[in-house]
Amino acid sequence: MNLDIAVLAVGDELLNGEIPDTNTAAIARLLNACGYRIREGRTLPDQEEAIAAALRELAGRHQVVVVTGGLGPTRDDLTARAAARAFGRQLVLNDEALALIRAFFRDHDLEMDPRNEKQALLPHKCTVLPNLRGTAPGFLLEQEHCLLLFFPGVPEEMEAMVEAELLPRLDALSGGHPPLCERILKIFGLSEPKTESLLEGLALPEGVSIGFGVDFPLVHLKLRATGAAAEELLDRAEVQVQRRIGDFIVARGRETLPQTVARLLSASGLTLSLAESCTGGLVAAWLTDIPGASTFFDRGAVTYSNQAKNDWLAVSKRILHDQGAVSETCARAMATGLRQSTRTDITVAVTGIAGPDGGSEDKPVGTVFIALSANDAEQAKGYRFSGSREQIRKISACMALEWIRRYLMERARPKA
Amino acid sequence: MNLDIAVLAVGDELLNGEIPDTNTAAIARLLNACGYRIREGRTLPDQEEAIAAALRELAGRHQVVVVTGGLGPTRDDLTARAAARAFGRQLVLNDEALALIRAFFRDHDLEMDPRNEKQALLPHKCTVLPNLRGTAPGFLLEQEHCLLLFFPGVPEEMEAMVEAELLPRLDALSGGHPPLCERILKIFGLSEPKTESLLEGLALPEGVSIGFGVDFPLVHLKLRATGAAAEELLDRAEVQVQRRIGDFIVARGRETLPQTVARLLSASGLTLSLAESCTGGLVAAWLTDIPGASTFFDRGAVTYSNQAKNDWLAVSKRILHDQGAVSETCARAMATGLRQSTRTDITVAVTGIAGPDGGSEDKPVGTVFIALSANDAEQAKGYRFSGSREQIRKISACMALEWIRRYLMERARPKA
Repeated sequence: MNLDIAVLAVGDELLNGEIPDTNTAAIARLLNACGYRIREGRTLPDQEEAIAAALRELAGRHQVVVVTGGLGPTRDDLTARAAARAFGRQLVLNDEALALIRAFFRDHDLEMDPRNEKQALLPHKCTVLPNLRGTAPGFLLEQEHCLLLFFPGVPEEMEAMVEAELLPRLDALSGGHPPLCERILKIFGLSEPKTESLLEGLALPEGVSIGFGVDFPLVHLKLRATGAAAEELLDRAEVQVQRRIGDFIVARGRETLPQTVARLLSASGLTLSLAESCTGGLVAAWLTDIPGASTFFDRGAVTYSNQAKNDWLAVSKRILHDQGAVSETCARAMATGLRQSTRTDITVAVTGIAGPDGGSEDKPVGTVFIALSANDAEQAKGYRFSGSREQIRKISACMALEWIRRYLMERARPKA
Repeated sequence: MNLDIAVLAVGDELLNGEIPDTNTAAIARLLNACGYRIREGRTLPDQEEAIAAALRELAGRHQVVVVTGGLGPTRDDLTARAAARAFGRQLVLNDEALALIRAFFRDHDLEMDPRNEKQALLPHKCTVLPNLRGTAPGFLLEQEHCLLLFFPGVPEEMEAMVEAELLPRLDALSGGHPPLCERILKIFGLSEPKTESLLEGLALPEGVSIGFGVDFPLVHLKLRATGAAAEELLDRAEVQVQRRIGDFIVARGRETLPQTVARLLSASGLTLSLAESCTGGLVAAWLTDIPGASTFFDRGAVTYSNQAKNDWLAVSKRILHDQGAVSETCARAMATGLRQSTRTDITVAVTGIAGPDGGSEDKPVGTVFIALSANDAEQAKGYRFSGSREQIRKISACMALEWIRRYLMERARPKA
């Protein structure tokens, strides 16, 4: 049975520009992994009346409503009060909740502020849901045909309670059969419409549907299937998609492109050094954000000035003068110079014009050259990207990673 | 007049765990800076019927509804179709929109896929809103007493259109008087409760209220006032806050810390080079993301390996062996070595252990050393930060920028 689930995130900070609501996406991720899908998300400020009205509305429309936020000890935490009001229940001091709160403070050797007692004021006849990681217990209301679960807004506490309290109840309600599986294939180098047209006429296994999304500059292709054979159907669908556009699929599932490249590099045992000009250290920052990057990453040169390219990468003044720093010759010289001086296995160089200024008729903004050097490969190529400075830098950084990925894939392929 | 505004974010990817909805928060931030507040946020998957029902509901409840997402060229982009259905309008090929799409492809030297024509299928009698940064034009519907604006979901395109198309209309609707002025002071080095306690007892001008937010690792202090004299009241309040915690205010308003440092560097006429170990190029990537960074940024060395520190920064093997790469001596040697070899005016070095592995009893995860070298300054200091790998890298990068900011401020101060 496909459950109809809604999420309501409560908090002023979500609607005044301070922070984005990440709880809805976190719940979606946990639910999605078990085959459940959220039908609707809502965000409201800490306003009792608005929350109560939304709760009544959502309870009338959905089978399960998950609420996060507004269970704290301060005056602007109004969710329990709003829930009581929404369904005409009294707000009462819940002894079980109070005992849980007291135990939390005792177990963590913390002094309990009298304010924390307020967190035990819950709607009459609710079920208390223990919060092992914080002071605010959650609670559950059964209202007509709807199950409403209330969790604290602190992401870590909320996530633990989704796993412990929500998922088992969803499995019980749905009969334990995850209704929907999804596989995400991340595409680089094809636009969304281009991807769709390349997949036109594909006879996917019955029951597999296809969806698209963009996480610039990547396109996400989503294959979905339901039922007991879902994973097998997705395997077959993925093979079909791979045959058509496999070259452009740069990551799968939750793995990002930098994570994919880091994994391949670690497995290869090879070392990497980078020479970045227009990307200004972005590739290095992405790769070194991954734990264990030091096993494969030797160094990166962010060579903005010509002197730096000459000093660290041994790019000759002649090349810089004749062809210029933004040229295929320079990119090639950067990669080979870096490899020769560092004895790294693979070096990659990026040089280009990210804009908004610095372009010319000959080399407009978006002109980017990439080069890769290894003991069995020397490649260099020019691109003309478009977009803002930030976009051009991002595409260029992804392209540099994609060069490394392709090199490692090619290298791992059995020779004829 | 306080406008009643709602935001609807559309996209399967927002409710399946792929990505969080950051558009609502981005709109909230832009609106909040001009005194407007969002009353309700909704998120829906790409489902025509659900979107149409929500649009009708929101239009009946709010004065302004901002919709993002679902204007793309693929089959699952259904927002325009849903809008037409919601209000009983026909979906027609809009010539103005088609001309804008064609012009975008022509101006960017890109080939137009026939599918992109679908993006010109808009509800009858809508107003087309140009999108200067992408292919999907937005549109506007006037429906009874509600103004509905539809923007693409790509954050950058959406944000530009909020500024160009939404804000002027809100100002017109509200009588041109932003009901609420806000000034954000960005604090680094003080926690939220610490900031609050340092400001205790401050007699702010009547009508000025104070709020807090966190954008890790910065704390945002928000001063708010209403009415014609709002700006003047905020000026006075800011002076008071500056007197108490001025040393910790590292940026103001929309300017980020990297933008502040870039502005000060440009004004100083001095050049900068970086030596980054644990931050892995993050500081360089942040600074070079700012247009014109090449005027002050010479180069960055992402020296992960010891050999790299020896080659490019002339850190002696003795220091690396005796004190280790994560030490005050090494940080100092990195900064001075880089300055001597490059003749840059200012050099800054960061070396530390970002974790999750690599810590020891002596130097636990979070141990970070920073050094700055200039012709009139040589400084080095150790820190012990806590948090995840990503958090430690971010705090370290902010601290490196803060060292540059303080050096430049100190230098600009008239000598006694």
